[in-house]
Amino acid sequence: MKPVRAIVSVSDKTGIVDFVKKLVDLGIEIISTGGTAKLLKEAGIPVREISDLTGFPEIMEGRVKTLHPKVHGGILARRDKEDHLKAMEELGIERIDMVVVNLYPFKETVKRGASLEEIIENIDIGGPTMVRAAAKNYRDVAIVTDPKDYDLVVKELEETGKISLKTRFYLAKKAFNLTAHYDALISDFLYSIDEEGNPVAVREMRNPLTITFEKVQDLRYGENPHQRGAFYKEVFIDEPCVSSAEKLAGEKELSFNNLYDLDGAFNLVLEFDPEKEGVACAIIKHANPCGVALGKTPEEAYEKALNVDPVSAFGGIIAFNSKVNAEVAKLITQRFYECIIAPEYDEEALEILKTKKNLRVLTTNGLSGLERRGQKSPFDYRRITGGLLVQDRDLVVFDPEKVKVVTDREPTEREWEDMIFAFKVVKWVKSNSVVYAKNKVAIGIGVGQTSRIDSARCAAEKAKMMGMDLEGSVLASEAFFPFRDSVDEAAKVGVTAIIQPGGSIRDSEVIQAANEHNMAMVFTGIRHFRH
Amino acid sequence: MKPVRAIVSVSDKTGIVDFVKKLVDLGIEIISTGGTAKLLKEAGIPVREISDLTGFPEIMEGRVKTLHPKVHGGILARRDKEDHLKAMEELGIERIDMVVVNLYPFKETVKRGASLEEIIENIDIGGPTMVRAAAKNYRDVAIVTDPKDYDLVVKELEETGKISLKTRFYLAKKAFNLTAHYDALISDFLYSIDEEGNPVAVREMRNPLTITFEKVQDLRYGENPHQRGAFYKEVFIDEPCVSSAEKLAGEKELSFNNLYDLDGAFNLVLEFDPEKEGVACAIIKHANPCGVALGKTPEEAYEKALNVDPVSAFGGIIAFNSKVNAEVAKLITQRFYECIIAPEYDEEALEILKTKKNLRVLTTNGLSGLERRGQKSPFDYRRITGGLLVQDRDLVVFDPEKVKVVTDREPTEREWEDMIFAFKVVKWVKSNSVVYAKNKVAIGIGVGQTSRIDSARCAAEKAKMMGMDLEGSVLASEAFFPFRDSVDEAAKVGVTAIIQPGGSIRDSEVIQAANEHNMAMVFTGIRHFRH
Repeated sequence: MKPVRAIVSVSDKTGIVDFVKKLVDLGIEIISTGGTAKLLKEAGIPVREISDLTGFPEIMEGRVKTLHPKVHGGILARRDKEDHLKAMEELGIERIDMVVVNLYPFKETVKRGASLEEIIENIDIGGPTMVRAAAKNYRDVAIVTDPKDYDLVVKELEETGKISLKTRFYLAKKAFNLTAHYDALISDFLYSIDEEGNPVAVREMRNPLTITFEKVQDLRYGENPHQRGAFYKEVFIDEPCVSSAEKLAGEKELSFNNLYDLDGAFNLVLEFDPEKEGVACAIIKHANPCGVALGKTPEEAYEKALNVDPVSAFGGIIAFNSKVNAEVAKLITQRFYECIIAPEYDEEALEILKTKKNLRVLTTNGLSGLERRGQKSPFDYRRITGGLLVQDRDLVVFDPEKVKVVTDREPTEREWEDMIFAFKVVKWVKSNSVVYAKNKVAIGIGVGQTSRIDSARCAAEKAKMMGMDLEGSVLASEAFFPFRDSVDEAAKVGVTAIIQPGGSIRDSEVIQAANEHNMAMVFTGIRHFRH
Repeated sequence: MKPVRAIVSVSDKTGIVDFVKKLVDLGIEIISTGGTAKLLKEAGIPVREISDLTGFPEIMEGRVKTLHPKVHGGILARRDKEDHLKAMEELGIERIDMVVVNLYPFKETVKRGASLEEIIENIDIGGPTMVRAAAKNYRDVAIVTDPKDYDLVVKELEETGKISLKTRFYLAKKAFNLTAHYDALISDFLYSIDEEGNPVAVREMRNPLTITFEKVQDLRYGENPHQRGAFYKEVFIDEPCVSSAEKLAGEKELSFNNLYDLDGAFNLVLEFDPEKEGVACAIIKHANPCGVALGKTPEEAYEKALNVDPVSAFGGIIAFNSKVNAEVAKLITQRFYECIIAPEYDEEALEILKTKKNLRVLTTNGLSGLERRGQKSPFDYRRITGGLLVQDRDLVVFDPEKVKVVTDREPTEREWEDMIFAFKVVKWVKSNSVVYAKNKVAIGIGVGQTSRIDSARCAAEKAKMMGMDLEGSVLASEAFFPFRDSVDEAAKVGVTAIIQPGGSIRDSEVIQAANEHNMAMVFTGIRHFRH
């Protein structure tokens, strides 16, 4: 296919003048519209206006200019069909062999907080139609949507006089990938507001569901070296999180597992308000915390968190809910960690952290951001083969109306504080999960066993092995105890108070066990399975 | 807005005649095209051909019929803008206040295995353009894309003489949701083939990435009751898996956690070829297996799997890699399980299983499907806040070129068999994971600890507590041992052979430990982190 005529109409004008000059040099006639035509003419390029091709004016502030059968007949005609060619001839339709189009900046308009009217005006109609028509007819037409492809197209034309089927197919699938992304963003935006343009509180779980992401980077590999991996982010997010975090230092690239662990780590520390509850530090390995503590300073929180299991902490991920200072930076650089994530860093702290070449230092550029959470990224996803499980994010901890003391004994003030701390931690541990806590340090973390009592036992064994004293600790469970056995075991190791959702048919048996041991027990009414 | 004129052009003609009759009764003029116009006329409905409105014929076998400024000017004109109204008047553009359009059956055409040419022909260009134009101009136009909305529209028109802004906005976001889905499917299809139409072996991790799903059902809730949940599936999948499975019995709906566990369970048993390796049975709780075994019959495999941890198995998910017979069905109904999934069921087995009202019985309608896996659903996803980690599915077990015995002693035949079994199981256990196996039963399963040796210890403790004899067992680890300590511990409990990926900087130390204990050790070269 040797192209004789191209339509050029671009919002992103990067490289367009040079590209079109070369097309003209190659003998291709250029049809153009509005701003693009003006720019090309100013550059001295001979351009034919689209209205000259269609015999119809551009109207309604550009809303209607290319939606014309002389344009779309010229794009969509199959060159191998007699009757298509005959229709062209009879109706004076000129063939269009190349379409160079990119779309109105819908994304950018939303992102800069424009008015609803302006956003709607930036929904491109003519552009996607030409892109889709040309992509459909890739056997005869080349659709160029990305300035990065200009060189490829020119090179092929210069070398062979035509654009190969392989390239046309490559361009066509890219074109539909663009229109899918474009409409997914429009759809996503429209589902985030009501008819007056106000944000909706609860997002509809619509059918079908189309979700779209921009690639941040290819990763060295996925969870394992034999799997490729890539990191994608949502387009409209504006919350402090791992996806929007900025890397301040560390030469090595983030890995798939780093990103997953960073997410778990930062979500955990976000549970704690740095002003009211203090500095939270979490150390994560294999998506589970191996140390979590609150402290008055970052160094206090870090040392307490580390002390619980320094063996597991090796090569882990660290997260803080507040500014990282030089004191803690010094301590951190004494050991090997993969990454650290925090809302901010002291200048001095950053310099110290930078001395560890492979330590990746990430900032979320914001303190806690508790209020902003969930506004833009409403859903959590779990992959299953061939499908997707979609759910609301787990953004609450307690249901204040359901929290109640169910034992004869009320918790002491210290027990209350430790229970609240432990329940926030256990929310971010993979089920079945239990956390033993004392003085706002998670001194035993039970992870992922298939029965709850095994998680409780493993954690208690481990705590003892690490020299932790469980006497006087509290126990949090992310789901109810099905039997009294875990309570009896907890009493044996010295637990004095338990926090759990409640809701078992054997709750009375479980409460009775707690009363027998003179424990305090609190039901939260909220479960936090996490798998 | 009282509509005076509607364009009607539908591929799915469900309910269209009744709907349009009512529109005509309400005084709305109908413009129509091709097959829709014919159908409406045959029903005695007065219809104006689109070519009458545009003054331009339908050409190129319908490729170009509605792509005309008289159509799109009529849809896109803002009724509040003087100059738009003036352009209409001057150019003889008639206002179009309602667009009733659904799209060429692209999905259905792909699904029925049509030729590439036919698939491409079923990429709708005119339809999406009208849908998008009308949706963009929702302040003035109603876009109806779903027959399910016909009643709503008629009711509003009959009751109020117009369509409210609220309804127009609802219809518009639904319209963009449709075009996003439509183009995501086209894009997905095009990325699955090369320019000759042959399937590609390796899917591109493209940028942007837009993925689309159809809703199977809303779920009672998500992972937890305070989170909404929904189950979505891919459109083009054709592999035996939980997403395509059929529910044969069980009144209760599947829950979010059921589906997630069913996925883990079925993926695990799929590792085993029923012809060559035997019947595999897995029992899953909280996304991890609490029992896995191979047997000559389903009842043998089941009993061996159950025996390892009957406490955890309570309320679990069971999966088989082969036909479920009456014998095992009887055993299963003696206990409480949530779900069972298998490629097939004996008629008698099914009748027996049906006697348990709440037991959900799922079939994947196919034996194993080992060869088909991964063809249609290439990627695995992990959600992180605000983003998505994308990776290839983990579809291999061993790298035959890298598997090697690294110790002085070669494994015995029985050890080999148990090691292969154990390594396949450990692949589907959450990291850090270890599996002790003997006689093709997983007698100890270590799950999710933040350090490997803790997983090994927890599993050994648990096995002993359940009365399992670890003497003469093998140990599989999904990732390398960082130190010799786990090998020493394994020797203490009676392990005689170890299988693991290898690759630690301390491999030589680990191998030496194995040699000291006269163990056999195999490196697989493939790691299976799973989080």
